Amino acid sequence: MEVCADSVQSAVNAEKGGACRVELCVNLMEGGTTPSIGLLQVIKQCVSIPIFVMIRPRGGDFCYSCDELQVMKEDIKALKLAGADGFVFGILTIDGEVNIAECQALLEAVRPLPATFHRAIDMTRNIFTSLDKIINMGFERVLSSGACNTALEGVHTLNKMV
Amino acid sequence: MEVCADSVQSAVNAEKGGACRVELCVNLMEGGTTPSIGLLQVIKQCVSIPIFVMIRPRGGDFCYSCDELQVMKEDIKALKLAGADGFVFGILTIDGEVNIAECQALLEAVRPLPATFHRAIDMTRNIFTSLDKIINMGFERVLSSGACNTALEGVHTLNKMV
Repeated sequence: MEVCADSVQSAVNAEKGGACRVELCVNLMEGGTTPSIGLLQVIKQCVSIPIFVMIRPRGGDFCYSCDELQVMKEDIKALKLAGADGFVFGILTIDGEVNIAECQALLEAVRPLPATFHRAIDMTRNIFTSLDKIINMGFERVLSSGACNTALEGVHTLNKMV
Repeated sequence: MEVCADSVQSAVNAEKGGACRVELCVNLMEGGTTPSIGLLQVIKQCVSIPIFVMIRPRGGDFCYSCDELQVMKEDIKALKLAGADGFVFGILTIDGEVNIAECQALLEAVRPLPATFHRAIDMTRNIFTSLDKIINMGFERVLSSGACNTALEGVHTLNKMV
């Protein structure tokens, strides 16, 4: 079980509740954005399960400017040094496809740590061809609710994806 | 003129527009929270005016838990190393007074850089006695809208504060 946390307390609660991994972000009202480095540092002192850090500079779509991509890259480098155990991100093109070139550039910064593709996959034009691309790039995991608002509604699609 | 920025582009625009200083935060919908370290790093490469970083782990009130205060302290240390030119924060007690002990603990982490007290001052029970405390502690600046929603509405109080 992976649990989303946005504070030290929620990460501690996740571990106590039996989570095997925390997905760390802030600003849940916007669907989660990149946390501060101090939040990761304090959480790493308080819990022992792996902390995967979301890299998302703002809410809204997943089509990023050059500046935003540069910020994401610097965040990965700094948060890796600060103890992140993996990262969660996703980048799309303006026509709703997985942005392979930009994802690969960030994957290079993430390695040798594992990477999870963001729920951005649910916004792509074809979730199954997107999944193939994501696997081919080497992402270890995908967050998805089967192109629906909740994983429960998308369970049929999720079953086909597995 | 000090301008609030939440992205590389808005910081660049602030400088172009003649701002003398940027107050950097993210999540403006919640009134601003601590930015990621990568955002500060990229902005420092793009603009030459001073960047003051907001230290606020979440929206809502300004009464923080021990965990949150620890996160704020770690954020100050890391963002200082990453090139911050000053910090903006404010901590209140649950009865609406400036939390002097906790503010002083963070000021120690900020020094020798300058510190601005957050608009949290507008939430205190008496803005004038709060201002005295803030000055006595050594804050160099205060953000305030004169205990009103906008600085324009609070101009009468602001005049008395100066």
